[in-house]
Amino acid sequence: MKPNFSLRLRVFNLNCWGIPYLSKHRADRVKRLGDFLNRESFDLALLEEVWSEQDFQYLRQKLLPAYPAAHYFRSGIIGSGLCVFSKHPIQEFTQHVFTLNGYPYMIHHGDWFCGKAVGLLVLHLGGLVLNAYVTHLHAEYNRQKDIYLAHRVAQAWELAQFIHHTSKKADVVLLCGDLNLHPKDLGCRLLKEWTGLHDAFLETRDFKGPEEGCTMVPENCYVNRQELEQFPLGIRIDYVLYKAVSGLYISCKTLRTTTGHEPHSGSPLSDHEALMATLCVRHSPPQHNPSPTHERSPLISVLREAWAELDQGMAQGRWWATIAGYVIGLGLLLLALLCALAAGGEIREVAVLLWTPSVGLVLGAGAFYLFHVQEAKGLCRARAELQHVLGRAREAQDLGPESQPALLLGQQEGDRAEEQ
Amino acid sequence: MKPNFSLRLRVFNLNCWGIPYLSKHRADRVKRLGDFLNRESFDLALLEEVWSEQDFQYLRQKLLPAYPAAHYFRSGIIGSGLCVFSKHPIQEFTQHVFTLNGYPYMIHHGDWFCGKAVGLLVLHLGGLVLNAYVTHLHAEYNRQKDIYLAHRVAQAWELAQFIHHTSKKADVVLLCGDLNLHPKDLGCRLLKEWTGLHDAFLETRDFKGPEEGCTMVPENCYVNRQELEQFPLGIRIDYVLYKAVSGLYISCKTLRTTTGHEPHSGSPLSDHEALMATLCVRHSPPQHNPSPTHERSPLISVLREAWAELDQGMAQGRWWATIAGYVIGLGLLLLALLCALAAGGEIREVAVLLWTPSVGLVLGAGAFYLFHVQEAKGLCRARAELQHVLGRAREAQDLGPESQPALLLGQQEGDRAEEQ
Repeated sequence: MKPNFSLRLRVFNLNCWGIPYLSKHRADRVKRLGDFLNRESFDLALLEEVWSEQDFQYLRQKLLPAYPAAHYFRSGIIGSGLCVFSKHPIQEFTQHVFTLNGYPYMIHHGDWFCGKAVGLLVLHLGGLVLNAYVTHLHAEYNRQKDIYLAHRVAQAWELAQFIHHTSKKADVVLLCGDLNLHPKDLGCRLLKEWTGLHDAFLETRDFKGPEEGCTMVPENCYVNRQELEQFPLGIRIDYVLYKAVSGLYISCKTLRTTTGHEPHSGSPLSDHEALMATLCVRHSPPQHNPSPTHERSPLISVLREAWAELDQGMAQGRWWATIAGYVIGLGLLLLALLCALAAGGEIREVAVLLWTPSVGLVLGAGAFYLFHVQEAKGLCRARAELQHVLGRAREAQDLGPESQPALLLGQQEGDRAEEQ
Repeated sequence: MKPNFSLRLRVFNLNCWGIPYLSKHRADRVKRLGDFLNRESFDLALLEEVWSEQDFQYLRQKLLPAYPAAHYFRSGIIGSGLCVFSKHPIQEFTQHVFTLNGYPYMIHHGDWFCGKAVGLLVLHLGGLVLNAYVTHLHAEYNRQKDIYLAHRVAQAWELAQFIHHTSKKADVVLLCGDLNLHPKDLGCRLLKEWTGLHDAFLETRDFKGPEEGCTMVPENCYVNRQELEQFPLGIRIDYVLYKAVSGLYISCKTLRTTTGHEPHSGSPLSDHEALMATLCVRHSPPQHNPSPTHERSPLISVLREAWAELDQGMAQGRWWATIAGYVIGLGLLLLALLCALAAGGEIREVAVLLWTPSVGLVLGAGAFYLFHVQEAKGLCRARAELQHVLGRAREAQDLGPESQPALLLGQQEGDRAEEQ
């Protein structure tokens, strides 16, 4: 790599709100999105909520000349909704489906059926290895009483771990997506602290878009204004995050966010706003590189907080499993009683009639039990990983600031610095 | 790292056959396993089928002085059954649960409930980064008519991809586990070809154990001899696989496999045989390093074969989903008919009696449909990843042998060689 090396990267991110039959003006919006992407010719366009594979195929055909590489991340029953279009060849791709993703019996929320995931693309640009990640975490339906909080924290942790373990050889890491997390939410802080990723909105000096960088704004005609009642300016839940290894310096030159209208025609492309970032990567002596800043206190405190949240979720999962266990027991007793009544000939018809609902009750409670046992195991797994990192962060704290990066980041940052 | 650097690594692997209430003499075998591991003091002991967390906790207590670090990989409803004990501190750990793992309605096989996974440990030994993986793939119940073949191939691919993407910064990669694959099975070849891992049994010059390195032998009193009818010597399905980056040379000095009896007391530790390998890592000029040997033809042909297998599995998954769709339709028709009959007053009792089983039929077929849609999506995802790699392998082939490692391995091997 030349000392005066510089790489410019134009990135687009949008949650497309592409639910077949339910999302308004879907076909028109997808068409306009395609036109817009063709006009702008980004290096990478990362999309979420492209639930229909037909929409992806339509875009793929339309964008083929400007974006020869594309991939649709399939998972779960409906899909992950994630896809990417790239001007540059995609060297490798893979994905990780989150272990926990809501409850199957919350059919009206539907997240469980989606198979929410993180997709990874490896690109080689100007001699650099770029790991680009695209993700979409579990939605937040009720901020005051969020029953999915533990799941979203576990997803943020899995996302952070996936990035941590798969990006050790990458020069530049980019994460785009709809995190369904406000900037100060636990999951967001956990992700940033553990991966060392920087927030384009907070880093750039040239931002144009809604106040506070909001990506769901009341000006957007597709947004349910009641949901934003508590946030008159809107909320910021879609992100462009990035980092570079020691020896490289990455900055966000400009960040543009749509303001409830499509830049050209005026109608919005989605209920979310699109993010358009111009990133610049250049060679820099290691001491000028501000990333990664693994300060001990914020990491330790956010790990502690996440630990407590997962622990509470685990207790709740186990509680539901116990309740289900009791219901199974009662259901079996009821079945035995009905058998006895039917055999005895008394109220025989009623007994026979009640037999099948009782079997249904036992089976339903059994499925409920199994689901919550699995939930508790998944949360326990994330908690164990987190606890291990917490232990090592504390060790690093005890050993003093010199040992921190090596201890915490598995020496990869240190090694990288030595190599360059 | 010094030029005369050398690292010796003693590794133990065993599928422990630890099914509560079902596996014979479980408590005694776990106790003896603990005694044996304490006596031998390996660097790493990687275990599969430790289904009961109590067994893990018992071993943890017992092995604490000799193996201060340990981890149990939780997943699924029952668990992954995987755990590790290490003499050296574990720097990091994480896991990946396989997307596909059998069918929930095959309750008597039980694999679906286990959450089969691959566990990763990162260790720092003598200045080297060691990535140790432990895994257990879906069991093979009928070799002649293996309904789980596509799932096992997809698991082997996910395992290979997980290793590929998480080990880019590792100096040494070690994979131990019960792959439920014979050495020449598609999944085994796919794994080896895509990761470049070497088989300790095939590489070592000093092997002591059953003929052909079998890890399930008829001499073992816990083995169901009927299952080995076609293989009089036994089968080899447990492995120690390894590789090192360019600049390092790894070899298997000795490999010992138990022969149906525990080395000291005579009674077997499990229905599988234990593998004990002594690996040696030393500094070596890049040209002497035999790994990784990504020859084009074997990789391309094995990728093609795996592609065809996944494609067939996908077609089957879709076929089942279609059948389930018809059953749902018929069930709904039946329900409508029953409603009409009940309303009409004719054979009212029969109609009411048939109502609940019909609802059960529709719900059951619905669950079956959703499961197989998800299965087809999972197989489609693996096939897409595989197809991409296949395309790039073909490109590499067309460009000639020089471009192969860089193109195929995302340049990490090439970069590594330049750095050293």
